[in-house]
Amino acid sequence: MKKIILSFVAIFVMVNIYAQTATPSEYHYQKLSLFEVLPVTSSDIIFIGNSITDGCEWSELFSNINVKNRGISADRTYWILERLDQIINGKPRKLFVQAGTNDLGAGHSPQSVTDNIAKLIDRFQAESPETELYIQSIFPVNNGFEKFAKHHGSKDKEIIEANELLKQLCALKGVTFVDVYSKLVDENGKLNREYTNDGLHLMGTGYLVWKKLIEEYVN
Amino acid sequence: MKKIILSFVAIFVMVNIYAQTATPSEYHYQKLSLFEVLPVTSSDIIFIGNSITDGCEWSELFSNINVKNRGISADRTYWILERLDQIINGKPRKLFVQAGTNDLGAGHSPQSVTDNIAKLIDRFQAESPETELYIQSIFPVNNGFEKFAKHHGSKDKEIIEANELLKQLCALKGVTFVDVYSKLVDENGKLNREYTNDGLHLMGTGYLVWKKLIEEYVN
Repeated sequence: MKKIILSFVAIFVMVNIYAQTATPSEYHYQKLSLFEVLPVTSSDIIFIGNSITDGCEWSELFSNINVKNRGISADRTYWILERLDQIINGKPRKLFVQAGTNDLGAGHSPQSVTDNIAKLIDRFQAESPETELYIQSIFPVNNGFEKFAKHHGSKDKEIIEANELLKQLCALKGVTFVDVYSKLVDENGKLNREYTNDGLHLMGTGYLVWKKLIEEYVN
Repeated sequence: MKKIILSFVAIFVMVNIYAQTATPSEYHYQKLSLFEVLPVTSSDIIFIGNSITDGCEWSELFSNINVKNRGISADRTYWILERLDQIINGKPRKLFVQAGTNDLGAGHSPQSVTDNIAKLIDRFQAESPETELYIQSIFPVNNGFEKFAKHHGSKDKEIIEANELLKQLCALKGVTFVDVYSKLVDENGKLNREYTNDGLHLMGTGYLVWKKLIEEYVN
């Protein structure tokens, strides 16, 4: 029995070390190097986040050349913190953040996501105080699809908890919290099947819901 | 010995059936559904292709809101043919095509890539004859990186052959062939390490080389 418990403890520790030490993919550095040659200016409205942000065509969606995509598939809040210079140096007009799903999927806590978003807000408020910040909720997931069921898809409770913490954080810091979650969730607390084909990412219809909610802030 | 040969034949047949019957990923349908809600107009300059096209921010790169990204990661020429309606119905001003790498990586022949691009050209010339077509070469690859070495990275000869066929096709059809390959290849016939971190995809510097070559056609 002792052996079994020790084995479980060892696996738990290893999984956590893995989650902490996982490194970004080649794709991450491809996008970073592309962003390096695409300057951000003080007229710009920046969308930063993971695959859900990456997957959209933001300037097209808002018919605005100053709306720019800085999403990177698989990104996590602590990797976003490491690439803020590229954006903060341009002192953009607005910044929309949507991140945390991959942190939770990798076993990080709602509190750690919130702590990282707090650091992001602090940096902007100190170094680019004119930038309007919009912290968007983590989206619901749906474990009824095979692909992401095991990790991301099982995080329903953590997502609700993280969103509550993010909302409190935004109130404290005086920035806008945008609750996209409530617009995408079904009556069972899952990402509505109307808007997804894998339980994690959005279809075009989902992006339209998101657009409708935030267009008053973008324009 | 007969058994061994028969086994090899069986494996060969199975691999080919797999290549032919592989289906697009969830991501493919996410992008398709997004494109469905983002209309193409006769002012537009469309970039269509696979991950290499998908990975860029084209409207930003050319500072032009009418330059639109219709790349889908992992796309193949015969899947592109199936999604032409979304683009052809808008009768865009220009279409830039860059595709074929994933076909070759999946075991398809240079001739099959060329046959599919011929079908694409035929459809546009019949249904949207005002659209200026730019068929771009397949890019070199580099098997000196682990990730794609086995499939895509081993296709040096097929890529050269496909590009020669594409060039002949364009001359025959009266459309512009753009040789990006020669700008990205090193002295050993590989994708230059200056422009890639995985032997297949481009870093920002690579996109700048590509931009410089085609900007006379885009503007």
